[in-house]
Amino acid sequence: MAEKLIGAAIFGQSGGPTSVINASAYGVIRTALDTPEITKVYGMAHGIAGVLSENLYDMAQEDAEELKLLLNTPSSALGSCRYKLKSEEDLKRIHEMLVKYNIRYFFYNGGNDSMDTCKKVSEYTQKIGYDCRVVGVPKTIDNDLFGTDHCPGYGSAAKYIATSVAEVHKDAYVYDTGTITIVEIMGRNAGWLTAASALAKLSDAAPDLIYLPELSFDPDKFLSEVEAVYKQKNKCLVAISEGAAYADGTFISQAKTSATDGFGHAQLGGTAATLANMVSNKLNVKVRGIELSLLQRCAAHLASQTDIDEAFLAGKSAVQYAVSGGSDKMVAFERDMSGGKYKCNIVYQPLSVCANTEKKIPREWINEQGNYVTQEFIDYALPLIQGENTRKLENGLPRFANLKKVKVV
Amino acid sequence: MAEKLIGAAIFGQSGGPTSVINASAYGVIRTALDTPEITKVYGMAHGIAGVLSENLYDMAQEDAEELKLLLNTPSSALGSCRYKLKSEEDLKRIHEMLVKYNIRYFFYNGGNDSMDTCKKVSEYTQKIGYDCRVVGVPKTIDNDLFGTDHCPGYGSAAKYIATSVAEVHKDAYVYDTGTITIVEIMGRNAGWLTAASALAKLSDAAPDLIYLPELSFDPDKFLSEVEAVYKQKNKCLVAISEGAAYADGTFISQAKTSATDGFGHAQLGGTAATLANMVSNKLNVKVRGIELSLLQRCAAHLASQTDIDEAFLAGKSAVQYAVSGGSDKMVAFERDMSGGKYKCNIVYQPLSVCANTEKKIPREWINEQGNYVTQEFIDYALPLIQGENTRKLENGLPRFANLKKVKVV
Repeated sequence: MAEKLIGAAIFGQSGGPTSVINASAYGVIRTALDTPEITKVYGMAHGIAGVLSENLYDMAQEDAEELKLLLNTPSSALGSCRYKLKSEEDLKRIHEMLVKYNIRYFFYNGGNDSMDTCKKVSEYTQKIGYDCRVVGVPKTIDNDLFGTDHCPGYGSAAKYIATSVAEVHKDAYVYDTGTITIVEIMGRNAGWLTAASALAKLSDAAPDLIYLPELSFDPDKFLSEVEAVYKQKNKCLVAISEGAAYADGTFISQAKTSATDGFGHAQLGGTAATLANMVSNKLNVKVRGIELSLLQRCAAHLASQTDIDEAFLAGKSAVQYAVSGGSDKMVAFERDMSGGKYKCNIVYQPLSVCANTEKKIPREWINEQGNYVTQEFIDYALPLIQGENTRKLENGLPRFANLKKVKVV
Repeated sequence: MAEKLIGAAIFGQSGGPTSVINASAYGVIRTALDTPEITKVYGMAHGIAGVLSENLYDMAQEDAEELKLLLNTPSSALGSCRYKLKSEEDLKRIHEMLVKYNIRYFFYNGGNDSMDTCKKVSEYTQKIGYDCRVVGVPKTIDNDLFGTDHCPGYGSAAKYIATSVAEVHKDAYVYDTGTITIVEIMGRNAGWLTAASALAKLSDAAPDLIYLPELSFDPDKFLSEVEAVYKQKNKCLVAISEGAAYADGTFISQAKTSATDGFGHAQLGGTAATLANMVSNKLNVKVRGIELSLLQRCAAHLASQTDIDEAFLAGKSAVQYAVSGGSDKMVAFERDMSGGKYKCNIVYQPLSVCANTEKKIPREWINEQGNYVTQEFIDYALPLIQGENTRKLENGLPRFANLKKVKVV
């Protein structure tokens, strides 16, 4: 048994929001509030930036019912940031805050960059001998976090994408005139989200061709594959990742890659429009480009209940693990098919394994021609989109959590 | 009592699809199949084009359970067209088909252009003395059909728009950095869909500014209004209609107005991107442009049950009305608030009233400054988005109707 550690806990959200990031927040906050060893629960206003600027919320001030509505409220309720710790100065400042508020539990919810933040805080506090347990909670629609079977946020985005693509497919086939439809799906370097469009085949309405950033994009091959489908069906529905790039690494939509986010990642978009132009010029057919856009990460109305449950469990487990002595880890999921059906077990991975590493779709889950995913991918992704969420509605519209966000003074 | 008319019925779908157009199809087809006076039920393959080319389906061949799934299947299940009757030759050909198949009931589901088609068929058959009852079934997400309180398809699109905008709002507020978000919403000449974004205020997540095509767009006024909101909130969420145009009638996104649909209407889009550029240049702020795109008309997963029920009722009423002797009319909705709550009554409007006339948002439902809608609009639209649909799911994905579409030979 680890030594009992009594003190405050702090929790923050970082990076791009998801439909279920607040379910993890609820898992952490609710569990921390209910844990005797934890004396206070602080929320970071806009992630680590809120620690640096001493903008903290007292989570005990929140109404219990409103807090629970976090389970179905998209986007980061406490605010997010894309702040990358810059120097030892930042870490000193964080330590100062930890000491000031007697914070002994540090929970941070995000993707690989956020796990890097966790790792730095963990290493620094260990180095200077300040007793603080640091546990990362995974989050990213991109599903590219290393060390976990899948990531909270992915299942809901995948469900939104598969459902929307199935509906777009129905729409695309409505006229008897020839049309080609190109749907652009999020995903910077990994194709997990774009691949999820293949799940629409269970609605008998899947894309004809799927192009992922895992393989380099060959425009001649692309055009001839589109043309072949079009000649056969008088239609063609293409799913393409926003991060699809030529062999030299240039993104298809180079025009939009000048802006970057706070971590130096290129901001992508416009891939569908670029390809629509290309196809239209070559084949002289009506082409429609569609960006599913940021609804992919915030359409909580279509969140997978499996994803919500797992996101909550990830947050809850982080607290339980830390209180029982764990630290320097990220909560991770392990798939258990031993009972013949999908089950998700919680494991803990070293932060050093998860930080800054990207997990891509294995080559063998992409077909030989490089224009579709295999049944292995379908089998992998399908359990993650199961279950309709039971969100609260008022007047036919979502009722989101309304937090007070009482500042600590 | 009108004379009993025994013979076949034909039904077709025309124009842009909606989430509930097939609920009307089910209303017509199911009721017609169950009506003794109706000897056969034909479906038009791709609307009136299917009549001209003698591409008809025998609807009695369909499985009853699959047919019922039309209630939750988006897009036109029989196929649509944008064919405008060109000449007396077309009408002669239609008459030839009516005679060949002994068709005495003609049902056509669409917007104002489709009501014009109905009107021409009705006038022609009357002129030549062929006994055929013609009833139009309204459909358009745009809600711009004259002679009806609202239109099947609008409520579901409005629910999708309000929900999506509420979710985008949550996303837009996630970082503490200044951002402006511009959401582009469908609607060529009428602002009903864009106005529906105001319903998001019931989720406490509404746009700050709403611009409709009913008023001409003044870029200086727009920029100063956006700047004022931004200065106060460090954010600004704008909803803009794709059809918003300058005082001289030029659409904001002129670049994309060269392509036209089959009726000679300009194909719009790119308004958000154009304005995002404009705002970014003027205010030097991060601006994101989002097109809700065609999910607005096909996102059946978020269809309003009220809309589904009313769309079905519209189809069913068309058949009942025709069988009881009615003709030359469009099914229309009349709002009945006499009981203190919303009720929708069926009335019948002359086709000549509905065809080719557009209904816009009354000026008094737009605020004085011309940048928002009033409570009157909210009161009008809110009942139409009520009720969550009970669509059939398999594997967490929509199970759409799978029709056999057996061709008549």
